[in-house]
Amino acid sequence: MRIADLRTPAALVDLDALERNAVRMGANAARLGVRLRPHVKTHKTLEAARLQVRGQFGGITVSTLAEAAFFAAGGFSDITYAVPVAPAKLADAAELAGRIERLNLLVDHPDAAAAVETCARERRAVLSVFLKVDCGYHRAGVDPTRAESAALAAGLAASPHLDFRGILTHAGHSYRCRGADDIRTVAAQERDVMTQFAGRLRAAGVRVEEVSIGSTPTLAVADDLSGVTEVRPGNYAFFDATQAAIGSCALDDVAFSVLVTVIGRYPERRELLLDGGALALSRDPGPAHVDPECGYGVVCAAGGAPLPGWRVVSLSQEHALARSAQGLPAAAFPIGSRLRVLPNHSCLAAALFERYAVVRGDLVVDEWRPARGW
Amino acid sequence: MRIADLRTPAALVDLDALERNAVRMGANAARLGVRLRPHVKTHKTLEAARLQVRGQFGGITVSTLAEAAFFAAGGFSDITYAVPVAPAKLADAAELAGRIERLNLLVDHPDAAAAVETCARERRAVLSVFLKVDCGYHRAGVDPTRAESAALAAGLAASPHLDFRGILTHAGHSYRCRGADDIRTVAAQERDVMTQFAGRLRAAGVRVEEVSIGSTPTLAVADDLSGVTEVRPGNYAFFDATQAAIGSCALDDVAFSVLVTVIGRYPERRELLLDGGALALSRDPGPAHVDPECGYGVVCAAGGAPLPGWRVVSLSQEHALARSAQGLPAAAFPIGSRLRVLPNHSCLAAALFERYAVVRGDLVVDEWRPARGW
Repeated sequence: MRIADLRTPAALVDLDALERNAVRMGANAARLGVRLRPHVKTHKTLEAARLQVRGQFGGITVSTLAEAAFFAAGGFSDITYAVPVAPAKLADAAELAGRIERLNLLVDHPDAAAAVETCARERRAVLSVFLKVDCGYHRAGVDPTRAESAALAAGLAASPHLDFRGILTHAGHSYRCRGADDIRTVAAQERDVMTQFAGRLRAAGVRVEEVSIGSTPTLAVADDLSGVTEVRPGNYAFFDATQAAIGSCALDDVAFSVLVTVIGRYPERRELLLDGGALALSRDPGPAHVDPECGYGVVCAAGGAPLPGWRVVSLSQEHALARSAQGLPAAAFPIGSRLRVLPNHSCLAAALFERYAVVRGDLVVDEWRPARGW
Repeated sequence: MRIADLRTPAALVDLDALERNAVRMGANAARLGVRLRPHVKTHKTLEAARLQVRGQFGGITVSTLAEAAFFAAGGFSDITYAVPVAPAKLADAAELAGRIERLNLLVDHPDAAAAVETCARERRAVLSVFLKVDCGYHRAGVDPTRAESAALAAGLAASPHLDFRGILTHAGHSYRCRGADDIRTVAAQERDVMTQFAGRLRAAGVRVEEVSIGSTPTLAVADDLSGVTEVRPGNYAFFDATQAAIGSCALDDVAFSVLVTVIGRYPERRELLLDGGALALSRDPGPAHVDPECGYGVVCAAGGAPLPGWRVVSLSQEHALARSAQGLPAAAFPIGSRLRVLPNHSCLAAALFERYAVVRGDLVVDEWRPARGW
């Protein structure tokens, strides 16, 4: 089967690019002397995760309990569930933890820690936990400068029902950066906040085995991760228009795209109507902080080459409008012709598809099915 | 089962509200003397569609060929596929059309019209078509003031291979309105553009059986649809935070919400971390044109009552941050407690779930599974 035979909109995974991205990040982690525990939420497929852990220690990171169960069933046995766990999910998490080598849970609040400990005690099990730390993103995590945070770590480490693995953060504010220099500043902050907190904890007698960090932008630029033990980037498997715009990758590295068909032509407004809308590309606003005109992704020819001057200017559920800055020649892009769009955020766009067409060049070589739900 | 037993994030459909919304729109159509052909893309379920067509003629509107096939298999036999059809989808569309009473296709370009006619001729079939008209939204559709548009309609009507049903539009620009008066202006424009175009076509000898219009906002306020034969609102089944903000409904009418759990508390920034992110609520920017602080939905207590002063201020893949303008008292919203969020755009949020928990009050009375894909 060839790309031209696919019904649109279709999710395309460029296997050559994905393999290159996986190898490059693996080499990056080796050079930096850290273990790579890739986040698999970007693609949610066994096949891509297996490429990411090739040559690595085998651990992965997931964002939902459904992903944890899916990857456990697929043979992955060392999984970090990197969202603070809800108490009502603990029974299922503990059941899963009992079936694999290790399921690491995250807590950032004493009440959550108490709930995890109670669950472990009642099951006569030991549950692995990380303390989630806020390194400046201000989404989740404890403030490492507060005494309560060190006390919470000490409490986790002291519990006979818990295996305290260490501290974990995600510098998600790296996505707001404007270029590689900017990202380097965030990457240094992510590392320093964590290694300094680990140092204070160790000085207070708390054993901190793991210092886990990672976002795709910070890992793309990091040159010294002394004191860090593990990194958890995820988006780098696919990359996307945002990562290219902020300097984490080149457009050529983007391994995920959405194939669409031209279903309307409006030369007077220099616009094409495409049959992939918000349910194929997602409404992620993208790198508007570096490119206010970014629209909803990078428009490419069917073969994958970016089309200069084209933008996806609006999205509704099943329609997108792409506009050209230069005009729309009469012979260009007839009804029925195909384009590819590199979405702003591949994690959100990929999750909208129940299957991916895996391609090498023009050939469809496989079909992968992502995990879904919670 | 009760709502409290659901794993979060969970999609909740309030059956009482949905039934009220369906009855009200049916009465609205009857009062206005038009047929109601509800758009089912908002929920994509057989069960909700059956409520919407109760007491109506039975026709529905869909946004993908996958939905058309799903609803045809569920017993719906009069379906309008309301996105301009891609030539490569015509073989499947024609095959489906042959199995049900009627599948109406949309065209807005001579090349698409030629492709539909060729498909019908080669199959020795007659395919039903509408001419899609742009009434001011400027997404899809022909400009009704241009001579080419009337010529295209005449060509469709003259073909022995096509059953030209009439003209169809969607006043999607009603979503940009700021209140009921504003919507009334768009509703009058939607009606007038279409009835005047129908008049010109008929004067030129073109038989125009159907004049089909409709968006949820314009139908919520319309008081005179003389000359219109059919309306196709869809969102009204669920409504959402946007519809409430622009005046199409009250917050009480919103039948779709996302149940989430508090998994983090940050009193110093007056924020709660919720376990439903962009993959549960969608990144739709919502009614920012009427409420720049709208965030990503209306935050409600677990029972459904809106919580004044709360906003969903940021979304990542599986996390949301809700912030209170008033502060976060120590005893309020502990870890593990539940909230509901009314998403900005229920169509996009509902499509993220593989099942809906159908509730009456606190009881889960059913589970519905939406169609998916293309």
